[in-house]
Amino acid sequence: MSENEQVTYIEAKKSENFSEWYQQALVRSGFIDYSDVSGMIVFLPPAYFAWQEIMRAVDSEFRKVGIEDTYFPMLIPERLLEKEKEHLKGFIPEVAWVTETGNTKLEEKLAIRPTSETIMYKSYSKWIRSWRDLPLKYNQWNNVLRWEFKHPTPFIRTREFLWNEGHSVFATEEEASTERDVILNIYNSVLKDYLALPGIVGMKSDNEKFAGAVASYSIEHVMPDGWAIQGPDFHNDGQNFSKAFEIKFLDKDNNTKYAYQNTFAITTRELGVMAATHGDDKGLVIPPKLAYIQVIIVPIYKKDNHDKVNAYVKKVYDSLKSKFRVKIDDREGYSPGFKFNEWELKGVPIRIEIGERDIAADSATCVRRDTGEKMSSKIDSIEMTISEGLENMHINMYQKALKFLESKIHKASTYEEFKKLLKENGGIIAAPWCGSGECELKIKEENGTKITNIPLQQEEHGGECVYCGKKSEYTANFAKSY
Amino acid sequence: MSENEQVTYIEAKKSENFSEWYQQALVRSGFIDYSDVSGMIVFLPPAYFAWQEIMRAVDSEFRKVGIEDTYFPMLIPERLLEKEKEHLKGFIPEVAWVTETGNTKLEEKLAIRPTSETIMYKSYSKWIRSWRDLPLKYNQWNNVLRWEFKHPTPFIRTREFLWNEGHSVFATEEEASTERDVILNIYNSVLKDYLALPGIVGMKSDNEKFAGAVASYSIEHVMPDGWAIQGPDFHNDGQNFSKAFEIKFLDKDNNTKYAYQNTFAITTRELGVMAATHGDDKGLVIPPKLAYIQVIIVPIYKKDNHDKVNAYVKKVYDSLKSKFRVKIDDREGYSPGFKFNEWELKGVPIRIEIGERDIAADSATCVRRDTGEKMSSKIDSIEMTISEGLENMHINMYQKALKFLESKIHKASTYEEFKKLLKENGGIIAAPWCGSGECELKIKEENGTKITNIPLQQEEHGGECVYCGKKSEYTANFAKSY
Repeated sequence: MSENEQVTYIEAKKSENFSEWYQQALVRSGFIDYSDVSGMIVFLPPAYFAWQEIMRAVDSEFRKVGIEDTYFPMLIPERLLEKEKEHLKGFIPEVAWVTETGNTKLEEKLAIRPTSETIMYKSYSKWIRSWRDLPLKYNQWNNVLRWEFKHPTPFIRTREFLWNEGHSVFATEEEASTERDVILNIYNSVLKDYLALPGIVGMKSDNEKFAGAVASYSIEHVMPDGWAIQGPDFHNDGQNFSKAFEIKFLDKDNNTKYAYQNTFAITTRELGVMAATHGDDKGLVIPPKLAYIQVIIVPIYKKDNHDKVNAYVKKVYDSLKSKFRVKIDDREGYSPGFKFNEWELKGVPIRIEIGERDIAADSATCVRRDTGEKMSSKIDSIEMTISEGLENMHINMYQKALKFLESKIHKASTYEEFKKLLKENGGIIAAPWCGSGECELKIKEENGTKITNIPLQQEEHGGECVYCGKKSEYTANFAKSY
Repeated sequence: MSENEQVTYIEAKKSENFSEWYQQALVRSGFIDYSDVSGMIVFLPPAYFAWQEIMRAVDSEFRKVGIEDTYFPMLIPERLLEKEKEHLKGFIPEVAWVTETGNTKLEEKLAIRPTSETIMYKSYSKWIRSWRDLPLKYNQWNNVLRWEFKHPTPFIRTREFLWNEGHSVFATEEEASTERDVILNIYNSVLKDYLALPGIVGMKSDNEKFAGAVASYSIEHVMPDGWAIQGPDFHNDGQNFSKAFEIKFLDKDNNTKYAYQNTFAITTRELGVMAATHGDDKGLVIPPKLAYIQVIIVPIYKKDNHDKVNAYVKKVYDSLKSKFRVKIDDREGYSPGFKFNEWELKGVPIRIEIGERDIAADSATCVRRDTGEKMSSKIDSIEMTISEGLENMHINMYQKALKFLESKIHKASTYEEFKKLLKENGGIIAAPWCGSGECELKIKEENGTKITNIPLQQEEHGGECVYCGKKSEYTANFAKSY
C-alpha cells in the first residue's frame, strides 16, 4: 500500500453491529458527514444528487396529476401555530424558536417550520373563495426542523431534513379521499423504481396518526436490524384544518362550506433506508438511477504501457459518457486494489477494469457492485453490457430487498405466538387486532412494539384480537420501530 | 362582465408609480403573495417554476465545470459565526437567532444561515489535507435569512430568499482567480438566455465589497425607475477564511499552505428584476423559457358551436403539448375579453384565439404578449409559428432591456456634469474616479449614489477624478441603488 492510501474501510460488520456499520458506511464512503450542529448532517455530492433525482422523479409524477410547486416562508408566527390544537400539541415540543434578530428581541416568537400547514393554510383561507378555486393542490420542496431529543441517526432521525410537503384542498370528502391511492402509488413507484425499496402500504392506528389528521397512511420499511421504519405518508385531514383556518368556499348551490384537505410527504430519511437496505460489509450499494457515478473505469497499468492504456480507456469512456454517469480513476500513486475498494465503499454500481489483457482481447472487464459478478465485454457492445448490467442490478437489488422484507413479516394468531415470533425473529408481527387503542397500548407497553400500520391489502382474516380475545377488526402490523 | 369576472387589474402605471405598479403586477397576477411574516413572500407556482428553471440552467453549467451540489445545516453555532471578524461584522446585525427549542433555552445560540461560509469552512478544514483534495468546488441551493429593517420589497429585499452559494477552494491564487470569469460568464449567460436580462459586469469598490472578501465582482442591473440593483456576485476571498478556519493542505513540495477561496451566488432577487424590467401596464411579461404556461388557448364560442370549437381546440392543443407548456382556458362564465386580460396580467407569452372564423380558415390567431402582434397561422404550421414566436419574443425582450440599460448609462467627466446627469436622467453615471474611498463616500454623501461597480471592460479613459481632480484610476459606475 502506498503512502497515499489512507482511506479507512468499514470495520463494523452489518450483521453484527448494524448501527455502527450504518454510520461508518455513510461517513467513510463520503456520502455524508457530521456537522458542528448536533443532529444535523452534511449531504455530500452523492447524497444530494440522489435526493435531486428523487425530487425530479416525484415532481414529474406530481405534475401529471396537477400538483404544483410553491414556496412558503420558513418562519411561522406563534399565533398561527396555535390555531389547530392537536397539531400544536404534536409539534410544540420539537419547535426551534427564533426570539432575537440582530440585537433586538422579537415581539412575537417565530417557529422554524416543523411542517407548513399553519402558514400555508392562512394563505389558503385568503385564496379560496368559490368552488371554482378548487381543487387546489400545492406542494413544497423544502427544509424543516424538528428538535428531537432522541439519539440522532443520519437521515433516519435528524433535526433538519429535506422533504416534499403536499397540501391539497377539495370541495368534497369523496374527492379528497380518491387522492390517497394516487399519492401512495406515486411514492411507492418511486421507491421501487429509483431506490429499489419495497414497503408495506397501510393505515395508521388512531394512536399513531398525524397530529391534526382524521386518518393517516404510510409506507413502512424494515431495517436490517429488524426494526420497522416509517417511510412516506399521506394524511386525510378532513375539515380539521379548514375549520381552524376558516378555509371556506361558496359551493355551486351557493352554500358556504368548509373544504376537505390532505397532506403528504416523502423525506430524505429514504436515503438512509436505501443505504441501510442495500449496503454490505464493503460499503454502500447505490441503486443505479440514483448513483452520482454509475460507472468507474480503473486503468491497470504496467511499466511503460501508460499511454496505451490511457488511450484505450479514453475510447471506452467516450463511448459511454453520453449515456451514463462515468468517470475514470487515473489517480497516480494508488494501486488498482486500493481503487477497487474505495469505489466499492462508495457503492458505484459498475466498475470497469482495463489492463493489458483486456486491450489485447478488444474488451473490458465489468464488475457489478451488488453481486461482484465479473463480465468480460467486447468494446463494441460495452454500452449494451453496462445498460443491461445496471438494469439487472436494479432488479436484483429490489428483489433482494423484497425477499428480506417478506422474511421479516410473521403472522401470529395468539399473544404467545406474537411474543415468541417477536423475540426469535424480530421484524413485523402481523396479528389480528380488535381495533381498540387500549389493546394497542398494552401490547406496546409489554413488548415495545407499536402498530406500524394496518395493511390496506387485508388478507382474509378472522380470529380474535391477540390481546383481548374479542373479535378482530383488522390484521395489524406490530413492530419495534425507529 | 359576468358576475365571476372579479380579477382586479393593475391600477398603477409603471411609468408613474413604479413601486406600486411592481407590487400590483406581482400579486394580482398570482406570481407571488405576501405572507403573515413581514418581509417574507409566498412563491406561487409560476414564480417557483421560473426559479426551478433558473436552478436547472445554472446547475447544468456548474456541472460542466466540476462544481458539485451539497447540502449543509441551516443553523450555525454562534462560535463559528464569530471566527472571521469582517464577515461577522457584516452579517451580525441581520442574523435571526434560535435561542429556544420546545421549552428549553439553548446553551449556545444558533444563527439561521445568512450565508454558509462559516459552517461550510469548518467542514472544509477537516476534509482538506493534501493538494490531492484540491480544487474542491461545492455548491448549495438553499434558503437564507437576513433580518433587514429596510422597507421590504418582494424578491428585491426579502428577509428570506433562495439562492445558490458556491464555495470553492484552490491550492494557488492563480487558479482561484481564473474561476472568476468562468462563473460570471455562467451567470451572465443564464441572465441573457433565460431571463432576457442584460447586466454590467464589474468589480466592487473596497467600500462595497463582501464582508470577508479580498475583491468582489457583480453583475448590475438598472430598474425601470432608474435605480441600480445588484445581481449575481462573485467574491475572491483570498486566504481570509482559510486562515480563520485553518483550511490548510500539504502541497506537492511537502509544505503546509493555506488555501485560496472563492464564493458566488445568484438569488431569487433576479425574479424581481425580471418582472420589473419586462412588465407593462397590463401586467407581467414572462420570458418564454421561464413561463409556467407558454401558450394559452382561448376558445371563442358562439351559440351552439361549443362542440365544434372544443374539438378544434383539442386538436391544436394536442399538436402543441409535447413541445410547449400549453393550456386551454375553457372556463365557463367568463368572456374571451376577460380571459385575454387575465392571461396578459399573468404574462403568458403567446395567446391563441380560436373562433368560428379561424376554424373556417383552418387556422388560429396567435398573439404575442410583448408586442401585442397578431399572427394568423395555419394549423399545419402552428408548431413552427409558436416556436418562432417564442424565440423572437425572447430576443425582442432582451434587446429592449438592453436598449433601456444603455439609455440609463451616462458619462460624466466633471462633478457638475455628474450632478446634472444624475438629476436629469437618473440611472448610472460613469465617471473617472481616483480609487480613493474618501472621494467615493463624499460623492455618496452629497448625491446618495454609491459605486455599483467598476466595469471590467474599461474603455480607454483618462481625465481626473470627478471629485478630487487627481489622476483617475478607473471609470466607475455611480448610481442610486436598491
